Amino acid sequence: MAETIIKIDLSKSPYENDMIHNRWHPDIPMVAMVKPGDDFIIESYDWTGGQINNNDSADDVRDVDLSKVHFLSGPVGVEGAEPGDLLVVDILDIGAFENSQWGFNGFFSKKNGGGFLTEHFPEAQKSIWDFNGMFTKSRHVPGVEFAGLIHPGLIGTLPSKEMLDEWNTREKALYDTEPDRVPPLATLPYADTAHMGRMSGDAGKAAAAEAARTVPPREHGGNCDIKDLSRGSTVYFPVYVKNAGLSLGDLHFSQGDGEITFCGAIEMAGWTHLRVGLIKDGMKKYGIKNPIFKPSPIKPQYDDYLIFEGISVDESGKQHYLDVHIAYRQACLNAIEYLTKFGYSKAQAYAILGTAPVQGHISGVVDIPNACATLWLPTDIFEFNVKPNSEGPKKELSGDVDVPLSPDL
Amino acid sequence: MAETIIKIDLSKSPYENDMIHNRWHPDIPMVAMVKPGDDFIIESYDWTGGQINNNDSADDVRDVDLSKVHFLSGPVGVEGAEPGDLLVVDILDIGAFENSQWGFNGFFSKKNGGGFLTEHFPEAQKSIWDFNGMFTKSRHVPGVEFAGLIHPGLIGTLPSKEMLDEWNTREKALYDTEPDRVPPLATLPYADTAHMGRMSGDAGKAAAAEAARTVPPREHGGNCDIKDLSRGSTVYFPVYVKNAGLSLGDLHFSQGDGEITFCGAIEMAGWTHLRVGLIKDGMKKYGIKNPIFKPSPIKPQYDDYLIFEGISVDESGKQHYLDVHIAYRQACLNAIEYLTKFGYSKAQAYAILGTAPVQGHISGVVDIPNACATLWLPTDIFEFNVKPNSEGPKKELSGDVDVPLSPDL
Amino acid sequence: MAETIIKIDLSKSPYENDMIHNRWHPDIPMVAMVKPGDDFIIESYDWTGGQINNNDSADDVRDVDLSKVHFLSGPVGVEGAEPGDLLVVDILDIGAFENSQWGFNGFFSKKNGGGFLTEHFPEAQKSIWDFNGMFTKSRHVPGVEFAGLIHPGLIGTLPSKEMLDEWNTREKALYDTEPDRVPPLATLPYADTAHMGRMSGDAGKAAAAEAARTVPPREHGGNCDIKDLSRGSTVYFPVYVKNAGLSLGDLHFSQGDGEITFCGAIEMAGWTHLRVGLIKDGMKKYGIKNPIFKPSPIKPQYDDYLIFEGISVDESGKQHYLDVHIAYRQACLNAIEYLTKFGYSKAQAYAILGTAPVQGHISGVVDIPNACATLWLPTDIFEFNVKPNSEGPKKELSGDVDVPLSPDL
Amino acid sequence: MAETIIKIDLSKSPYENDMIHNRWHPDIPMVAMVKPGDDFIIESYDWTGGQINNNDSADDVRDVDLSKVHFLSGPVGVEGAEPGDLLVVDILDIGAFENSQWGFNGFFSKKNGGGFLTEHFPEAQKSIWDFNGMFTKSRHVPGVEFAGLIHPGLIGTLPSKEMLDEWNTREKALYDTEPDRVPPLATLPYADTAHMGRMSGDAGKAAAAEAARTVPPREHGGNCDIKDLSRGSTVYFPVYVKNAGLSLGDLHFSQGDGEITFCGAIEMAGWTHLRVGLIKDGMKKYGIKNPIFKPSPIKPQYDDYLIFEGISVDESGKQHYLDVHIAYRQACLNAIEYLTKFGYSKAQAYAILGTAPVQGHISGVVDIPNACATLWLPTDIFEFNVKPNSEGPKKELSGDVDVPLSPDL
Repeated sequence: MAETIIKIDLSKSPYENDMIHNRWHPDIPMVAMVKPGDDFIIESYDWTGGQINNNDSADDVRDVDLSKVHFLSGPVGVEGAEPGDLLVVDILDIGAFENSQWGFNGFFSKKNGGGFLTEHFPEAQKSIWDFNGMFTKSRHVPGVEFAGLIHPGLIGTLPSKEMLDEWNTREKALYDTEPDRVPPLATLPYADTAHMGRMSGDAGKAAAAEAARTVPPREHGGNCDIKDLSRGSTVYFPVYVKNAGLSLGDLHFSQGDGEITFCGAIEMAGWTHLRVGLIKDGMKKYGIKNPIFKPSPIKPQYDDYLIFEGISVDESGKQHYLDVHIAYRQACLNAIEYLTKFGYSKAQAYAILGTAPVQGHISGVVDIPNACATLWLPTDIFEFNVKPNSEGPKKELSGDVDVPLSPDL
Repeated sequence: MAETIIKIDLSKSPYENDMIHNRWHPDIPMVAMVKPGDDFIIESYDWTGGQINNNDSADDVRDVDLSKVHFLSGPVGVEGAEPGDLLVVDILDIGAFENSQWGFNGFFSKKNGGGFLTEHFPEAQKSIWDFNGMFTKSRHVPGVEFAGLIHPGLIGTLPSKEMLDEWNTREKALYDTEPDRVPPLATLPYADTAHMGRMSGDAGKAAAAEAARTVPPREHGGNCDIKDLSRGSTVYFPVYVKNAGLSLGDLHFSQGDGEITFCGAIEMAGWTHLRVGLIKDGMKKYGIKNPIFKPSPIKPQYDDYLIFEGISVDESGKQHYLDVHIAYRQACLNAIEYLTKFGYSKAQAYAILGTAPVQGHISGVVDIPNACATLWLPTDIFEFNVKPNSEGPKKELSGDVDVPLSPDL
Repeated sequence: MAETIIKIDLSKSPYENDMIHNRWHPDIPMVAMVKPGDDFIIESYDWTGGQINNNDSADDVRDVDLSKVHFLSGPVGVEGAEPGDLLVVDILDIGAFENSQWGFNGFFSKKNGGGFLTEHFPEAQKSIWDFNGMFTKSRHVPGVEFAGLIHPGLIGTLPSKEMLDEWNTREKALYDTEPDRVPPLATLPYADTAHMGRMSGDAGKAAAAEAARTVPPREHGGNCDIKDLSRGSTVYFPVYVKNAGLSLGDLHFSQGDGEITFCGAIEMAGWTHLRVGLIKDGMKKYGIKNPIFKPSPIKPQYDDYLIFEGISVDESGKQHYLDVHIAYRQACLNAIEYLTKFGYSKAQAYAILGTAPVQGHISGVVDIPNACATLWLPTDIFEFNVKPNSEGPKKELSGDVDVPLSPDL
Repeated sequence: MAETIIKIDLSKSPYENDMIHNRWHPDIPMVAMVKPGDDFIIESYDWTGGQINNNDSADDVRDVDLSKVHFLSGPVGVEGAEPGDLLVVDILDIGAFENSQWGFNGFFSKKNGGGFLTEHFPEAQKSIWDFNGMFTKSRHVPGVEFAGLIHPGLIGTLPSKEMLDEWNTREKALYDTEPDRVPPLATLPYADTAHMGRMSGDAGKAAAAEAARTVPPREHGGNCDIKDLSRGSTVYFPVYVKNAGLSLGDLHFSQGDGEITFCGAIEMAGWTHLRVGLIKDGMKKYGIKNPIFKPSPIKPQYDDYLIFEGISVDESGKQHYLDVHIAYRQACLNAIEYLTKFGYSKAQAYAILGTAPVQGHISGVVDIPNACATLWLPTDIFEFNVKPNSEGPKKELSGDVDVPLSPDL
């Protein structure tokens, strides 16, 4: 069995574990060294570091402190890796811990993070998903069970100082265009809750003040939330610092394209089995700026879909110009409306779109003024038939359970 | 064999054929009536009505008159269809004409339509694609051959008067925000080049003045350019007028998600074999506003992909807020850069992304400020190995052919 | 459009067309020459040369003359091909003729050919299948519609004299072990009904007396009846004579693994679009004795199966030793029994197994004494749900139609 | 986490564990009871009960005592199950033990069990396969790595007394036709090495004398060795005794269709996570005699194959009548010959066919006298390109390692 090079204790705060960090900075020390060809296991907290519990209240989702996330395991150094190389990462397997066979999906309050459909679901809600082997179902969302497309929501390499500066500059410029916005346009460095791994003292404090937050995906990978970057796939990461510095966390048991509920996927703690390799000078050889990857040969295959279209006309009927974001929102809202005909609440339908392996395709981006996006809903995840027929839909659910909601205080 | 209810003559102008129209209006008369359960064949011009030729000059793409497109075949009336129903359309098959086994892909000049990457490819270019049975390749883009994911770029039902008014109102409002923009923000009604099918006289002129252009997708379907709405799929269209009025055209031999080259796909003339059915009162029963569809059981399956990520930081390094459009553009640019390492020109790489069955996924839309989009490039369409390895890419092409370019006049 | 190098006239007997033959012999003259890289079209009779009609009687199936089949189009010579080479054949597309959009499936009388389940279905029966674009359904087998996995049942290269002699020797030896068997153990040369293409006179008669019948698959390909050797696949054939001599026929609109009904698949006349290439000395380079092939990227994908097991204990309860033939027969009988619970007659169920893209897997061949074979029935081809559930099956068919049967005379 | 209802200790003999048995008999007592809807975990020995070690000698494979296998975990009783019901089993997941991340594949000596190609590989050989997450590779078979299609080789319900008698009668009849054969035609009851679970004393001895051996698959399931009966699939078993009595073992990390090496798959110890349900009176309702099953949505998908044909002419050139067994053997031999061109030894190639997810299709069983079988070799499991091209194969392996062989003593 491969060695577990980063271990965690779910009963302790991630701040007590110096192999964890929650900011990006070039100077965070490596917590372990591996060689090209090695395979090893890394344990990870859920992205909130244990702030969310397996119960029937959404209070913890409402009250979550989003400056503390995401708790990442690493960085792991790779011998011989130098800036300009490509770090090849085989994700050999991922799993939940034996004593923690559950995950959560939440909608954040619009006042605390929000989400893709925050105007429609402005208050905190939470569903709990139990894992049964490779499958999951939720006591809050009946009638649906599916195989997990398990993946790390967040995985990446350490940025160089130059790259970090570029990130801070461009994100601050955006933030400054509307500094009072709720939720904000960007999450800027914030030292108070920073966990800088094995950096400490004044150097740690200084770094914390400029270290990048973990929320967005960036050139090094990061919080891509790409569902297909799943166990079995191979990822090629740009290397920006000596030894690369690979960190990961934010494990998802399953997620739909877009991770539209923000909190988001079925979030879990667990372990990841990796193997690393190097392509020397690969960034230049292949012209790589962002990571690229190959999909897994062993992922859930739900091949029968019902596909919903959305165009860039918003809920008020206003026309937008080739806006895929709005088009995808409409496709999602169309799918939610459809599912209510079978007895789902809108929140349950939203939770399904956020967690199940739905696909979101950019179908048309040139036919002015409407972008066209499609939401692909796999039909085999439902215990009943959701395909249209001449008799119309049958109300399959009694409506006696719903996704718990905690109103803003 | 099913009856061909709409025939065309490629040697004549579509304006001479009264079973063709190029605007959307509720009063365009049905050109044929069918019954639920019927299957039948409809012939179609390519979307430009024959403006583009099979040669090695992009002059025709540069000089195309975009107010004339798209030439649609129909409308076909369905007995018993009433507003509020769902029209079920089985796309049983699609093909090119025996004596027209080729298609074209073009980049429009930025001064005449532009495209998704118009800032990078501002001048007209054109590639010709030959069909060999179910496969296609181009003398202008060597080293690549793939099976066609044949589909109608444009298919939809006639709008009601109320829906037409809504379209005109909202699109005019957008247009008016920047009326001098090139290309414009929207294409407004334009009577001069309108082909109103069997409407003529004063009524035809009045209708032409308000009839909707065919460029964008809308609630009735229309120019969705969804590659997966391919032969073998089943589509459920909202019905807005008595007898529904189904029209289609803009056939594509193949296209990538987004149809990023605008002209766009591999455009062809051809025939479509359809079967229709009805779900009475289906719009309300299923809560349908836009069409939904089921994918085909018989479509090209390229399962080995190389996946490129893009985030919403633009080419100048400017940060944008959750902008999937920009993120997908970056993913496309990343893929283009990658392909140049194997000897392709950027224009050839762009043409491949526009024509081959690439997927565009909305991967993350909540991780502020970066949207994350992915471009999935099927690797098996290339005659050589395009996957990364430690030795680096091999220049596989001599560079002696390129996509013809015609400079602006 | 590719040139049609072999044309046929369905209204005339194949014996009148000298580009057709129905025996294998090295001296049959090439009817056309092509070069490596060429693509071209070949028209073909159905395998019986028009003996079966589109009607509701099985008399023609009962009375068929099986010494006349299969009518093959060719041989086509390939310039530069020499014994020892591999002939690379891309099957670019296959289709039925526009005015012949139907096919047939039959069970032969046990007295005239029989079939895999001839003890269970000893008399002639026939079902007619209509083609609707890429899909087919039958007026004799309601409730089922599926996309065609179109392929040539028979395709191969001319044998050398040595190979022909080997075939004749080994098949005669088998035949002689039970010369009076009905049906016989092998079909030996039979000059009376031989069509030797462009061979005539005494040479033709002499060749006809020793030419191999077309029934079995052999080292050159031949009547493999492999459903996955479908349009879009690439086949590598051994070359035994100068210019290879490629012939094909016996087109199938669809077939299940095993072609268990013998007549067998959905048989049709039609055209095939091919492209050829050569691997010089390829037989030795790759150690090839029988053809190998790569499957198509564009074939029907029915991914939801119900899988039936069979073991090598026969219908009487007798134990056989690792006999896959008997095990597969049991799996088929199990599937037939299952389908009767939904209202199908056994003959209808048998016709479905023979025509739909069912898979037959050799699951276990070492666990003495039982071989284990599996029959994979795609569930999405049915208009109703055939999966097991706690309520039991629902009789979906009224039983008012069946597969026509013609008793032996 | 689901409860582990059967635990094992790999350091102890399976004969010491009374929740294990290695014979089928209706009177073996249930070792645990579960209810419909329950999910639970069962641990299992490898099929030999630990006779084979992780080393580089095949002595243990040569000397294995095949009368002791297979060691099964169970029987588990299901409340409410009665003869005539269908037991629904969801295989939720399967895994190797953390401290036992390896498996073995072997060829038995022809004198001790043999195998599918025992005439070609008459002596004992063994390869060891290491598990790396979801993937496996072997130090004895370089250049190949693939995802595991993990499944229980053996799973079934207890037979009734009547069924047991039928098995014994028919297998004895076969055995008696050639009682001195090596290997024998069937494995008859053998009390000496029987492990009857919780049966003991005289009753146990009497039962052992008539209990069925575990080698073949039978009506209750048993040793089907069906690779697609993998984790994620749902199986419907006939129930023959009160409480059904579900037992399983013989876990495989991966196997090709046919399990042609007999020992056979990549054999491992591990755990299985199951959920059970009932369809009352399901055998009659659905006409079920043998188990049926639905495949998994999450299994390795290798979609690019090279397909080898085989016909029923044996290695000596002798013609056999529609013998799928021989046809499949030829297809396997053809594939082995092909792989030697890339540097594999024949034993390595044979090991690949036995362990990787190759498919074996019954392609034609009616074209007298030749059956046609196909062996589908997934090409993406190789680290190099194994597809044919005009330059011929490249010797990719140095040949410095091979599959260890232990000559007969």
